[in-house]
Amino acid sequence: MKQLVSLLFLLLCCPFAMHAGRIVTDTIQSRVLGAPVVCNVYLPSHFEDGDRRYPIVYLLHGFTDDYTAWRDRGQMQTVADELIESGEAAPMVVVMPNAGGADIMNVWNGYLNLPGWAYEDFFFTELIPTFEQRYRAIGDKAHRAIMGLSMGGGGSTMYAQRHPDLFSACYAMSAWLSFDGKNDYPKESRPYLLQEAVREHSALRFVENADPSTSSGQALLQQLRTVRWFFDCGDDDFLFDQSVRIHQLMRDRNVKDELRIRNGVHNWEYWHQAIRTALPFVSREWER
Amino acid sequence: MKQLVSLLFLLLCCPFAMHAGRIVTDTIQSRVLGAPVVCNVYLPSHFEDGDRRYPIVYLLHGFTDDYTAWRDRGQMQTVADELIESGEAAPMVVVMPNAGGADIMNVWNGYLNLPGWAYEDFFFTELIPTFEQRYRAIGDKAHRAIMGLSMGGGGSTMYAQRHPDLFSACYAMSAWLSFDGKNDYPKESRPYLLQEAVREHSALRFVENADPSTSSGQALLQQLRTVRWFFDCGDDDFLFDQSVRIHQLMRDRNVKDELRIRNGVHNWEYWHQAIRTALPFVSREWER
Amino acid sequence: MKQLVSLLFLLLCCPFAMHAGRIVTDTIQSRVLGAPVVCNVYLPSHFEDGDRRYPIVYLLHGFTDDYTAWRDRGQMQTVADELIESGEAAPMVVVMPNAGGADIMNVWNGYLNLPGWAYEDFFFTELIPTFEQRYRAIGDKAHRAIMGLSMGGGGSTMYAQRHPDLFSACYAMSAWLSFDGKNDYPKESRPYLLQEAVREHSALRFVENADPSTSSGQALLQQLRTVRWFFDCGDDDFLFDQSVRIHQLMRDRNVKDELRIRNGVHNWEYWHQAIRTALPFVSREWER
Amino acid sequence: MKQLVSLLFLLLCCPFAMHAGRIVTDTIQSRVLGAPVVCNVYLPSHFEDGDRRYPIVYLLHGFTDDYTAWRDRGQMQTVADELIESGEAAPMVVVMPNAGGADIMNVWNGYLNLPGWAYEDFFFTELIPTFEQRYRAIGDKAHRAIMGLSMGGGGSTMYAQRHPDLFSACYAMSAWLSFDGKNDYPKESRPYLLQEAVREHSALRFVENADPSTSSGQALLQQLRTVRWFFDCGDDDFLFDQSVRIHQLMRDRNVKDELRIRNGVHNWEYWHQAIRTALPFVSREWER
Repeated sequence: MKQLVSLLFLLLCCPFAMHAGRIVTDTIQSRVLGAPVVCNVYLPSHFEDGDRRYPIVYLLHGFTDDYTAWRDRGQMQTVADELIESGEAAPMVVVMPNAGGADIMNVWNGYLNLPGWAYEDFFFTELIPTFEQRYRAIGDKAHRAIMGLSMGGGGSTMYAQRHPDLFSACYAMSAWLSFDGKNDYPKESRPYLLQEAVREHSALRFVENADPSTSSGQALLQQLRTVRWFFDCGDDDFLFDQSVRIHQLMRDRNVKDELRIRNGVHNWEYWHQAIRTALPFVSREWER
Repeated sequence: MKQLVSLLFLLLCCPFAMHAGRIVTDTIQSRVLGAPVVCNVYLPSHFEDGDRRYPIVYLLHGFTDDYTAWRDRGQMQTVADELIESGEAAPMVVVMPNAGGADIMNVWNGYLNLPGWAYEDFFFTELIPTFEQRYRAIGDKAHRAIMGLSMGGGGSTMYAQRHPDLFSACYAMSAWLSFDGKNDYPKESRPYLLQEAVREHSALRFVENADPSTSSGQALLQQLRTVRWFFDCGDDDFLFDQSVRIHQLMRDRNVKDELRIRNGVHNWEYWHQAIRTALPFVSREWER
Repeated sequence: MKQLVSLLFLLLCCPFAMHAGRIVTDTIQSRVLGAPVVCNVYLPSHFEDGDRRYPIVYLLHGFTDDYTAWRDRGQMQTVADELIESGEAAPMVVVMPNAGGADIMNVWNGYLNLPGWAYEDFFFTELIPTFEQRYRAIGDKAHRAIMGLSMGGGGSTMYAQRHPDLFSACYAMSAWLSFDGKNDYPKESRPYLLQEAVREHSALRFVENADPSTSSGQALLQQLRTVRWFFDCGDDDFLFDQSVRIHQLMRDRNVKDELRIRNGVHNWEYWHQAIRTALPFVSREWER
Repeated sequence: MKQLVSLLFLLLCCPFAMHAGRIVTDTIQSRVLGAPVVCNVYLPSHFEDGDRRYPIVYLLHGFTDDYTAWRDRGQMQTVADELIESGEAAPMVVVMPNAGGADIMNVWNGYLNLPGWAYEDFFFTELIPTFEQRYRAIGDKAHRAIMGLSMGGGGSTMYAQRHPDLFSACYAMSAWLSFDGKNDYPKESRPYLLQEAVREHSALRFVENADPSTSSGQALLQQLRTVRWFFDCGDDDFLFDQSVRIHQLMRDRNVKDELRIRNGVHNWEYWHQAIRTALPFVSREWER
């Protein structure tokens, strides 16, 4: 029987085995949040073989999803292995942190600081330094990128807007960039606070407010120009208008970005394609 | 030497020769315009072999271009041959009529009726009936489509808006859909009249004005829904906002359309890619 | 709380709900096999609304997989919904029959007739007639196609080779088309019998043996030309040589086919992309 | 009138003007050949602004074509500008040297050394050193690539095989890699000599002869592994078999390469698409 198994293994698995990275699950005890945060981390093949340092990407999930979404529904290992193997993407570490869950009334969703849940503080003061040391990130702006879908596309954009010194590239898929409507959730509930935070930190208004006729606006815009931006959204996505709007605003303020509208809605079919553009995009200035 | 030539011919040309359509140049004497109008017409392979009737596409050029643009810069014969051969597009006749030229002060540019140059009248009362008989078009709405770039993308959209009973599909590339600015051309010059006509017949306002709360608006929208619409524009095209806007307007009025934003500007690189999506799109309901 | 749920539902699910088909699981009691065969069947949106008849596709899984593979790993419902909604594919019924399983020593894998397991007989005398009536297939060659991956790509090709009167199109992904090696499985075991059947019914030799210098060969080739063929395989797939070889053989015998080699190996990343080409390919002559 | 012209210019040309490179025509007096050789050279935008050194690509034309082919039929300036602007390709210098012409009996075609026309010697001892100094190439293997179509695809492959220390990447489109047939040209005529040289320097046999069981073969293969190889050919190209064959040979000798088979024949539609993959491929390790 052993022989059989090995034949089958050869038949079915051999092509993958050659250059396979892997995804490990790791936890960081956050003092800021007073709670552990679980992350999946993609490590490229040969990561364990030496002490090489790698570029790093933060890959953010959407509302009601969690740190398993990109691994399981996004098939990150296969996708990353394939793109790195063909050279379309550079070998990199991909951190998929937890920032949500389906039980939205009892689990915090979101990347911004909410009252009692300072996730953004955690992200920048704990997650980045800890994981970049733990996983041998190069650790400079030039070799750090951020990307995500929906709420995570908004989170990526807001993070890169407020920390342009930390990210070389930002790729936002079907991004939730602002909230202007009526907040239907029960007052002070977790999703209520999330929506209010998105309202307050609107990525659209952030660009609108960067007034090129003032020196502070000029300085801010100059900083935004040091990030490479990419927005990717389906033509039938209910958040379509937001991706278009930020592209128009950035264009009008001479902050170069890329926009793509493909066929699709707000679903994993779309994001599964998007990640194949996203990893090569952020890799463009990275060594192989 | 003859042997050499035939060897070379075999080496270089044989693959094309098998299923090659051809482009003929034909002229229609327009009584409406009081002038001849030259057209290039793509005929699929085997067109001459029988009396089969074909679907027909009107393919419109842009401002300052003429009827040679799609043939020469768009490489229409090669593209159409290839897409038909692979089955991605159905065998069809493609009419590329003249509606412009580089000498804009002395040559009429445009698809709308201008004072003294009723091109739209010519198009519908002379060009369509004459050429559809001459080139064996099936001749019904289901087997007629319209497409074009820039000024021709606007022309396609306006024609299909005002004659939804005639076209099954409309594919507008980098479309010039409206004009709201100051008209800098000399009063009553040809480009001045063109811009004023685009202002008057804005394809954006056409949709805005279709008020679903009125029965006439409802009826109009119902007619628009019988056309399959596709807008395709580069993210750095100076007409970007117009393609996005018509998509939003049509979506909000429940007129289904497709929108794609790819990388690019207002140039032939973009349109050369677009035509590869456009011919398959209009072919979808046509027999092969 | 009900309100919350419905808001979330709106936010996350609304876009899908509009034109969603569904996948039902159905069983056919096979007298030929003396066993039930389970199938997943994709039904397009509005299937239940009338008595319209549809084109039908048989979509075959690979070795060690079963009838759930295309639904779960291939995400068939989302993919089919999206392609039909955009018009790239025609509304169709997709039958995903069971022909295997991971426990290869105790479960029959394969589409050919094996001693004691006449699956091909079952397929043509029971599955096709029963399911095409049950699911309102149009039921003629023009509106029937077959496709599959790996062992199912081989099965599709062999079925279409031996029943060219039944299929208008065949799309084979990473196809297992022949077996020439040493059979390492225990004699008379199920995988042993499968490999011997593939050896005997090699799709490559089938074309090689169609000798255009004989009238029977001519007749056979003429029949093969009534099927539209498509082979799609990764450049690093261990079955790469077989897809290339059948393309060369068919080309040399003037049986037109399509071949695509994309980046990839023998995995679901590849097939997930392939299905997006396959459904449009077989749809090209079908009404929408 | 000046105002009009500038308006038109703005309308039509502005988007290109921002990041436009340019193509210059330059001549090198070859002592090896005893003749001048004309080249087109693409220079990226801002080339003249400083003394920055660039990666360099040699882009080879096909049989019967000349140094104008990639510029005019391949639309190199627009394509390169666009890919560099979007970041898909790195800023680079592209040298398009002359190595042929339509009058094949009286003009030398080919990249190999022919009796009386030592083009390969010219290329490596004169063209590379002269132009890399003249156009500020970085000038090392890591920042030098070669690519071409048909005869130029063969030339690229043979050059990179015999000078693996000079090129980091080789992209061969529809490559003419070997010649095994009867040479129908008049003995000692220029095309006759060309075909005999291709026969002698077959890129296929070059790999076949690299015997991994010998130390010299091992050493050679080890050198080939330092080049990144890409073969790209249409499924209906008459040279299809050669691209497939070299991929199989290299795979079997553990020299990693990429192979893509797309829809198409031996024509500019194909190469126009291919160049959009080729420039990003060779750029992957280059700084932006």
